Amino acid sequence: MRIADLLKDGLDCVKVGYPLILASGLDVVRRLSKMTPVIADLKVADIPNTNRLICEQVLAAGAFGIIAHAFTGRDSLEACIEAARRAGAEVYAVTEMSHPGAVEFLAPQAEKMATLAADAGADGVVAPATRPDRIRLIRSIVGDLTIISPGVGAQGGSAREALAAGADHLIVGRSIYESRDPRVALDRILAEIG
Amino acid sequence: MRIADLLKDGLDCVKVGYPLILASGLDVVRRLSKMTPVIADLKVADIPNTNRLICEQVLAAGAFGIIAHAFTGRDSLEACIEAARRAGAEVYAVTEMSHPGAVEFLAPQAEKMATLAADAGADGVVAPATRPDRIRLIRSIVGDLTIISPGVGAQGGSAREALAAGADHLIVGRSIYESRDPRVALDRILAEIG
Repeated sequence: MRIADLLKDGLDCVKVGYPLILASGLDVVRRLSKMTPVIADLKVADIPNTNRLICEQVLAAGAFGIIAHAFTGRDSLEACIEAARRAGAEVYAVTEMSHPGAVEFLAPQAEKMATLAADAGADGVVAPATRPDRIRLIRSIVGDLTIISPGVGAQGGSAREALAAGADHLIVGRSIYESRDPRVALDRILAEIG
Repeated sequence: MRIADLLKDGLDCVKVGYPLILASGLDVVRRLSKMTPVIADLKVADIPNTNRLICEQVLAAGAFGIIAHAFTGRDSLEACIEAARRAGAEVYAVTEMSHPGAVEFLAPQAEKMATLAADAGADGVVAPATRPDRIRLIRSIVGDLTIISPGVGAQGGSAREALAAGADHLIVGRSIYESRDPRVALDRILAEIG
């Protein structure tokens, strides 16, 4: 809460994941949402009925966006999108990810998953800043959907290269919140992307 | 809690997912774990560092097992397995799932994911009761790993066929807990599998 309050004027939104939600309960989404828009990065990846139940709770707590996996298929992703529509919120579908293991099963399906995300009515997709060539490819598939891009900083991705490749927003985690001075860390990234 | 208490002598364990944990907090895992072994069906599907943080919290709350996706790759799955080893707990990897959308991306990779689960040291895999032929295939790949099998009942899978195909344990949800008499619903399944 302290870091979000310190940085909120330099951010579009704050992304929270399960480690924080498990430790603090959904109340942390309620409290953060009063300060800044919140994307719940739950990597939702279950059957449609369970996806719906998860999304409904997080959206009711105030999240404006949810990150869901596409690899569980169209019906699972649509369950998230329908829950978001009812709440006036947004869904971002994972096309691939920024860690080494993502090349095994995710990357080979990234194009098909990006196509699915666009067809199913997702608001955007998640594509890794660690692989700008992949962002370029995903952009060519999803048209004007929003691309949000993790992996900047601690995981090695370049903010400037990710944006040049077609990302709309950058997701930066550890290199800000684990910094001794998160505001300086954020300002350094903002300066880099001009 | 009431249903778990009513059924615990007829069950090997209780599986809980995010809908319940989001509504009740991790405390529900703590309370259930005092009554019966708990598998946390979180479909963990993030980068290794996040997977570790998720698993550590749920295991610290008392879960004896975690269900993790294999789709996110070896490093992500290993992060779950290492966290479970440190806690003396177990990890079950999803090979494919029981809903219609699972045929799009998951099913074509099921054999490779089952091989990964066995190689990485998972304790078992999850294979769908709705597709006994797939259970048979997965059994041929994972040797003596434990196979747990969802989709019985509400999703259309047959308890008897899933076991005959090689499943060790059945996962039954809605057809028990949405039943007017959960104990009768459970006894009917127990009678079927004799």
